[in-house]
Amino acid sequence: MSNREISTAVIKRLPRYYRYLGELSEAGVERISSRELSQQMKVTASQIRQDLNNFGGFGQQGYGYNVQYLREEIARILGLDRTHNMVIIGAGNLGMALANYAKFERNSFRVICLFDSNPELKGKEVRGIPVRMIEELPEFLRENSVEIAALTIPKEYAITTAKILVENGIQAIWNFAHTDLNLVVPKNVAVENVHLSESLMRLSYNLKTIENEK
Amino acid sequence: MSNREISTAVIKRLPRYYRYLGELSEAGVERISSRELSQQMKVTASQIRQDLNNFGGFGQQGYGYNVQYLREEIARILGLDRTHNMVIIGAGNLGMALANYAKFERNSFRVICLFDSNPELKGKEVRGIPVRMIEELPEFLRENSVEIAALTIPKEYAITTAKILVENGIQAIWNFAHTDLNLVVPKNVAVENVHLSESLMRLSYNLKTIENEK
Repeated sequence: MSNREISTAVIKRLPRYYRYLGELSEAGVERISSRELSQQMKVTASQIRQDLNNFGGFGQQGYGYNVQYLREEIARILGLDRTHNMVIIGAGNLGMALANYAKFERNSFRVICLFDSNPELKGKEVRGIPVRMIEELPEFLRENSVEIAALTIPKEYAITTAKILVENGIQAIWNFAHTDLNLVVPKNVAVENVHLSESLMRLSYNLKTIENEK
Repeated sequence: MSNREISTAVIKRLPRYYRYLGELSEAGVERISSRELSQQMKVTASQIRQDLNNFGGFGQQGYGYNVQYLREEIARILGLDRTHNMVIIGAGNLGMALANYAKFERNSFRVICLFDSNPELKGKEVRGIPVRMIEELPEFLRENSVEIAALTIPKEYAITTAKILVENGIQAIWNFAHTDLNLVVPKNVAVENVHLSESLMRLSYNLKTIENEK
């Protein structure tokens, strides 16, 4: 199985499959056909079969998918079968919210430290996670094994900080700053942008479209 | 100009154009060619021309685009040229972070109230915005003109709350709950999902892919 051949669109859908299979599993469902799964997820059954065939299938004719097994396989494909150490840059509301979100997948992502520039937070702990000063970041990264950094700071500081992260071995950046990092981050560092204000603008556009149709 | 003919992909890119044009405008740039804009945004110049042609062009041969004018036109297309009243359901870290994000576009989105079920927050204000109890939501929506609701509550409550929102006239939901709302929300209500944990899983997948290539 080569990861390189999987299209971005499939990768976008995998976490959604993972979420639905989790809900089915919680509800005690042991197996499901692609038809049933498709009705719940509002995608076509053939789309589901095609997507999962990218990874070798997992389904059996006339039996459907084993929910627990399929979920575990998708977890493995997504790299959720091991723990990723993570730091969060910015201990404001968004940083705190992300620390909670990461807990969703408790065994896959472990927030080991928050960093902030506000001296009032120095030495504090939030929900059991220590907050350190941003100046300590390079040393912390060199001394600890950290793969992922979430960036929840204003755009003025984001690019400088991204450079420091990359120079000190961070391999993945979860970027919430209102800017793109493509100019400063090399190709061998994964970047996932979450531009919340762009999402709000799309909502505004769709709202306008719906109103125009009335 | 019919909104219906514009593809989802173009709509996804418009807020990004808007952001870049804002940065150019702040930097004092008055006009820009599609070639220069394409170098900054890392998309092709022909993509930019094609995208903007959907809305009637705006560019002049040999002159390029007037930055301020193009930005205002895109704002108008996105519905940012007027104020949308918004409520935020859930006054936790994420709700507070969104209240700040919405301020980014101060004249387009106005958060008029936060709602929460925690009685300790009753009657409080956060950054000048009142917090009300969730039981007061239906009456508040009937008495005030609110178009957008942001949903930052656990999935167990999200679907019930979405129903209340729709029954009381909300036209757009910015959904951060870890569930899809497509089963309960009619087609004439706009929904924009931000599933943060799915975004983190995509990052984890891309990280794994990069590691496999080493």
